Amino acid sequence: MGEPVSRTKRAVASPEIERLVSLLAKLPGMGPRSARRAALHLLRKRETLMQPLGEALGDAALKIKQCSQCGNLDTMDPCAICIDPSRDPTILCVVVDVSDVWALERSGAFSGHYHILGGVLSALDGIRPEDLRIGGLLARVGLGQIREVVLALAATVEGQTTAHYLADLLADSGVKTTRLAQGVPMGGELDHLDDGTLLAALKARRTV
Amino acid sequence: MGEPVSRTKRAVASPEIERLVSLLAKLPGMGPRSARRAALHLLRKRETLMQPLGEALGDAALKIKQCSQCGNLDTMDPCAICIDPSRDPTILCVVVDVSDVWALERSGAFSGHYHILGGVLSALDGIRPEDLRIGGLLARVGLGQIREVVLALAATVEGQTTAHYLADLLADSGVKTTRLAQGVPMGGELDHLDDGTLLAALKARRTV
Repeated sequence: MGEPVSRTKRAVASPEIERLVSLLAKLPGMGPRSARRAALHLLRKRETLMQPLGEALGDAALKIKQCSQCGNLDTMDPCAICIDPSRDPTILCVVVDVSDVWALERSGAFSGHYHILGGVLSALDGIRPEDLRIGGLLARVGLGQIREVVLALAATVEGQTTAHYLADLLADSGVKTTRLAQGVPMGGELDHLDDGTLLAALKARRTV
Repeated sequence: MGEPVSRTKRAVASPEIERLVSLLAKLPGMGPRSARRAALHLLRKRETLMQPLGEALGDAALKIKQCSQCGNLDTMDPCAICIDPSRDPTILCVVVDVSDVWALERSGAFSGHYHILGGVLSALDGIRPEDLRIGGLLARVGLGQIREVVLALAATVEGQTTAHYLADLLADSGVKTTRLAQGVPMGGELDHLDDGTLLAALKARRTV
């Protein structure tokens, strides 16, 4: 943050510490300064944090793989969600990323299966349909067991473009295609909301 | 950040991922949300970041030790700074923490030796003189080679209390005891400075 480049480039500790700092600095939300703080914290908590974290990283790097069916990350393929007999296999929730699966699982609101696209269509970033896991989605729908596909994509331009593209593709398949409701978030105060959300919430208003 | 406890407690991914997330969340500046983001980032960059970071952590946990002379962290004991023949052994800079050594080394402004206290005196936190590496400092000064001790402690109440305590202890040793200048930091605008700093800078004003 505002410190000259030369300061961050200069090696001031042993190569082992410098290497640790430079790797920690590559984590999202970390910079050179917070990476140094994290490295010191780790060196102080060697037995309780540093060694366990090192092992957890090695362990996860070795064991975690992508589910060939839905794209989730797990030690098993198919993943624990895909093979869970208590989940409803007739409803499929399409999300962009593994973090969306985690968010929906935390909410406990969904008990069907997932399909992770791996991104959204974006002319700007050059992401085309063939870059996403759309073929796999159509193949799963083509098996005939799925009755409903919930498009749980972000309410952004790219997210909605992707949702429309998928809705078009699925139109002839005979499955019901739905999307998440848009409106006022829980705890959301009206004067903090953008106009688009207010407009959507007003248009989709319901009788109490 | 404001999310209910139940959300962060609920296991939504495989135990290996959950363990990784909970360890990452213990790093300074990380919370449950940023730890999940970091874990996903790591899983995506398995070869380039996850495995190297795991190795760097194991490597550092195994090799890095505390220098028995100055308290610095290094693979060697005494550390690289203590045994560097190009450094001036007659001037000793007393700092609170390893991060202070790194900051001074980055600045390139100091080429003497260091002594790391490991904390500051604090009645509130119950940190007494015997909890700090003060005995080692007096022993080093007692060897007779050191001519000047620079007390580079924070300009906080605890830092200055500790500095006064050390200055009293060193008063009879015959070494010159100095402290860092206080004043306006480089690039500091006057109307963003606190009154204490302005007062100190004005009292220590110099002829141009």
